[in-house]
Amino acid sequence: MIFSSKLLNDAVQEFSKLPGIGKKTALRMVLHLLKTEVGQVEAFTEAVITMRKEIKFCSKCHNISDELVCAICAQPTRNKQQICVVENIRDVIAIENTGQYNGLYHVLGGIISPLDGIGPEQLQIESLRERIIHDRAEELIMALSPNMEGDTTIYYLVKLFKDLPVRITTIARGISFGGELEYADETTLARSIARRLPVENYVQVGG
Amino acid sequence: MIFSSKLLNDAVQEFSKLPGIGKKTALRMVLHLLKTEVGQVEAFTEAVITMRKEIKFCSKCHNISDELVCAICAQPTRNKQQICVVENIRDVIAIENTGQYNGLYHVLGGIISPLDGIGPEQLQIESLRERIIHDRAEELIMALSPNMEGDTTIYYLVKLFKDLPVRITTIARGISFGGELEYADETTLARSIARRLPVENYVQVGG
Repeated sequence: MIFSSKLLNDAVQEFSKLPGIGKKTALRMVLHLLKTEVGQVEAFTEAVITMRKEIKFCSKCHNISDELVCAICAQPTRNKQQICVVENIRDVIAIENTGQYNGLYHVLGGIISPLDGIGPEQLQIESLRERIIHDRAEELIMALSPNMEGDTTIYYLVKLFKDLPVRITTIARGISFGGELEYADETTLARSIARRLPVENYVQVGG
Repeated sequence: MIFSSKLLNDAVQEFSKLPGIGKKTALRMVLHLLKTEVGQVEAFTEAVITMRKEIKFCSKCHNISDELVCAICAQPTRNKQQICVVENIRDVIAIENTGQYNGLYHVLGGIISPLDGIGPEQLQIESLRERIIHDRAEELIMALSPNMEGDTTIYYLVKLFKDLPVRITTIARGISFGGELEYADETTLARSIARRLPVENYVQVGG
C-alpha cells in the first residue's frame, strides 16, 4: 500500500507488526485513532508504554505482576498448598476467568520441546521445587496443553519430584488432543480442573 | 476477563477500544508487546501519537497530509484538470494503490445521507466549486460507493455544477450494488476508473 502521508504510513507499519494484523486492518485502526480525541489516543499510548516498562514478573510464581509479588500470590484467602503448573501467563488468565480455582500458580515459561530446543533447564523448574518444599505444597495440578510436549513435561516433573511428599494431578481430558489450552471455553476448562485425576490414572486412560 | 495486573488490564482495555478488536485479540497484542523490546514498543507508541498530533488535512483536497498541501496536490506531474471526488481518505488510498490514476482528488468527508442526518452543507462541496473554477477543471470523476447515498450525492452535484463547464463522469459499475468501495480489489477498481462513463449514460444503464 502507498500512502501520501509519511506519518500515516509510519503508524500503519507499526500496527501491522502486531500478530494477526495485516495492512488493511492496521489502516482501519490508524484511521480510527485519527478520528479519536488526542487525549484518548494519549491514554492509549500511555497505557501501552507504561505496561511495557513497569510490568514485572512475580518473584514467587513468575506470573506478570505490578509488584514484586503478584496479586494472586499476595491474596490471603488463596490455598497456598495447591499449585497449578502452567506453561505461560495466558493460561493463568484463562484459569482465573473460570472463577473455579482458589490455589496458586507456577508459570514454567514454556514446556519441554526438544524440537524447539527447549529443555528443562530453560524452564522455571528449580524454583518450583523450592516452592514445593518451602510452602509445604500438598498438590501440584498440571494444567499443561494436552499434546506431546505437555505430556513430556508432566512425565519429567513427576520423575523429578518423586522424592517429595506432593500429590501430582493433571486437569481432566476434556480438551481435544492437540488443542491449545488458552482457547478452551470456560466451562470445559473449569470442569477439567474440577475433575482432575492422579497422574497414574491419567497415564492408563489417556496415554 | 479478569487480570491480576492493573497495568496489563489497562493496556488490554485500550486495545479493545479499537474497531473489530475483542478482549482475546487485545490480550494477544498486549502479550506480544510485552515480549517486544522496549525500544520497539516506544517506536510503536511514538508513531501513533505523532501521527495523531501532527497530521493535517490538505487545504486543497482535504486529504490527510503531512504539510499544508498534500503530497498528491503538490506533485507537479499530476493532471490538475481532473478531479476525482471521493467520500473519504480510505478511498483516496484505494485508488492510489491501483496506480492507474494521475489526476487530483477531492475528499467530500462523507456522502449525502438523510437517514444519518448528513446533508450537503456538512460536506466539502463549496470548496469543490471553488477548485473547479480556480483550477479550470475539465473533468470531475465521481468515485463514490455504488449505493443509494452515493447516487444521491452524484445527482446533487450534477445539478449543482450544471452551470460550470466541467464534464462529470462516474467510475464504471464493476463493483456490485451495495458494496463498499474501499474493499474492492485493485483490478476491479482500476478498470472502473478506466471505463468511466458520462453521467447521462450511467443514469440510463444503471438507474
